[in-house]
Amino acid sequence: MNVGFIGLGIMGKPMSLNVQKAGNTVYAYDYHMERAEELIAAGGVTCSSGKEVAERADVIITMLQNSPNVEGALFDEGGVAEGLSAGKAVIDMSSIAPLASRDFAERLEKLGVDFLDAPVSGGEPKAIDGTIAVMVGGKPEVFAKYEELLKTMSSTVTLVGGVGAGNITKLANQMIVAINIAAISEAYSLAKKAGVDPENVYQAIRSGLAGSTVMDQKSEKIFKGDFTPGFRIELHIKDLQNALDTSHGVNVSAPFTSLAMEVMQSLKVNGHAKDDHSGIAEWYEMVNNFKLQ
Amino acid sequence: MNVGFIGLGIMGKPMSLNVQKAGNTVYAYDYHMERAEELIAAGGVTCSSGKEVAERADVIITMLQNSPNVEGALFDEGGVAEGLSAGKAVIDMSSIAPLASRDFAERLEKLGVDFLDAPVSGGEPKAIDGTIAVMVGGKPEVFAKYEELLKTMSSTVTLVGGVGAGNITKLANQMIVAINIAAISEAYSLAKKAGVDPENVYQAIRSGLAGSTVMDQKSEKIFKGDFTPGFRIELHIKDLQNALDTSHGVNVSAPFTSLAMEVMQSLKVNGHAKDDHSGIAEWYEMVNNFKLQ
Repeated sequence: MNVGFIGLGIMGKPMSLNVQKAGNTVYAYDYHMERAEELIAAGGVTCSSGKEVAERADVIITMLQNSPNVEGALFDEGGVAEGLSAGKAVIDMSSIAPLASRDFAERLEKLGVDFLDAPVSGGEPKAIDGTIAVMVGGKPEVFAKYEELLKTMSSTVTLVGGVGAGNITKLANQMIVAINIAAISEAYSLAKKAGVDPENVYQAIRSGLAGSTVMDQKSEKIFKGDFTPGFRIELHIKDLQNALDTSHGVNVSAPFTSLAMEVMQSLKVNGHAKDDHSGIAEWYEMVNNFKLQ
Repeated sequence: MNVGFIGLGIMGKPMSLNVQKAGNTVYAYDYHMERAEELIAAGGVTCSSGKEVAERADVIITMLQNSPNVEGALFDEGGVAEGLSAGKAVIDMSSIAPLASRDFAERLEKLGVDFLDAPVSGGEPKAIDGTIAVMVGGKPEVFAKYEELLKTMSSTVTLVGGVGAGNITKLANQMIVAINIAAISEAYSLAKKAGVDPENVYQAIRSGLAGSTVMDQKSEKIFKGDFTPGFRIELHIKDLQNALDTSHGVNVSAPFTSLAMEVMQSLKVNGHAKDDHSGIAEWYEMVNNFKLQ
């Protein structure tokens, strides 16, 4: 298959390589074309614009930072839409606002072009291994057509609903992760200041109802004060902003997400934007004037 | 061993039976002595007061609702303290305020009496099976002396720190559980109102970083709107009140716990006090005027 790929960042670069290695030809575009070196070595082809990508490929994948970046890549001058023709498809694998996904799908439908939103979870190592999870929103028949392609990048590809459902699911995931990190940080802060070793608390409760993947993956980082990312607070802020905008857009009040957002904003203001999101624990240290370690 | 047991409620009754069945003699007291029927049939002995329990037993277990109940049982007229003598011990297995545990320990120490706080997690079925988890605070040598006794009621007995540490750990557990339930309820509310089946969201994210025991044990109840307890909101309110009092007592700001408390208070006001704590999902339905099912 001729596959377009726009956005060769930390995630997009290894993902596009996996598509190429699976026997497809990737037509790639990025503002920083030096990112395509490995892809070219593997047989990929670089293009000079999104328009050219869309002309040469049958399906175009976008992997960019947020809704405005995807909108620009698709609909700006020289962008993908100018090179599209009926029967082609766009798969946006970025994590963006689901209401934007629905808007893009409508605009592309008028060109006879199919659309899937297919955000991923899992970081760079899983993108390299091809073990990221992909949550897909779109029509079942479009999903069926591109499921094999998505599986060249992922071990778990799930159709969760119509267009936008992929990003709704991703936002639900990001809300829960942020709040669960806050929960353990708050509980460990109580323990520490009350004179109980948080690591003992972790060992005593991890097998019970309070147990979580966040607890098992982030407790050690918190106990060590090691907040190297992982997933950066500034990116999680973007996701929570989309989660809040979307919640309010569909008339859902989201107070725990709001609170998590305030905590992360406060961390950003205090120089922690590039820390791992487990750095939420640092907020508790800051406001309570103590150290968890 | 001669073991006193005060409080034969939903949890205390099966716990005291397990102590008796392990070859000890249980000396029991409860305001409702009809609760001791099975215990008597198994060879247990009933007493007419906490004082008599303390006179006849070497170690006295209390399993009551909250700090004031334990304080009353120990120190009121006719209570345990009047029957205690040096060398005996009190093990409070209630879930109470850890600062109260520390107070009780100090007052008992003056009588030459050892103290452990040893709250449990797990409900009635686990109390019957002897598979509750016990989190213990106290001196290591006192713990060593009564570890075998605690194991007659529990599959997992963990010493987590000095006196009060058991209840600190229990509160940490209850904070995390409440907040994690809110997290999934908020995320599922967004999904439902955005037109995505929350069950699809659950299936797509449960194996990733957002996964938790709360998610696996409570999602089905939320999807079905089945809030039969389980663990009642009114009891979780008690635990969160102790968590907030203790947090503030040791100078920790606990905003997520506060918010969970407000949500549960609002549920109580609206007639949901006896629902399972997964009924936090009902708060989202109430404030957003929709149904999750």
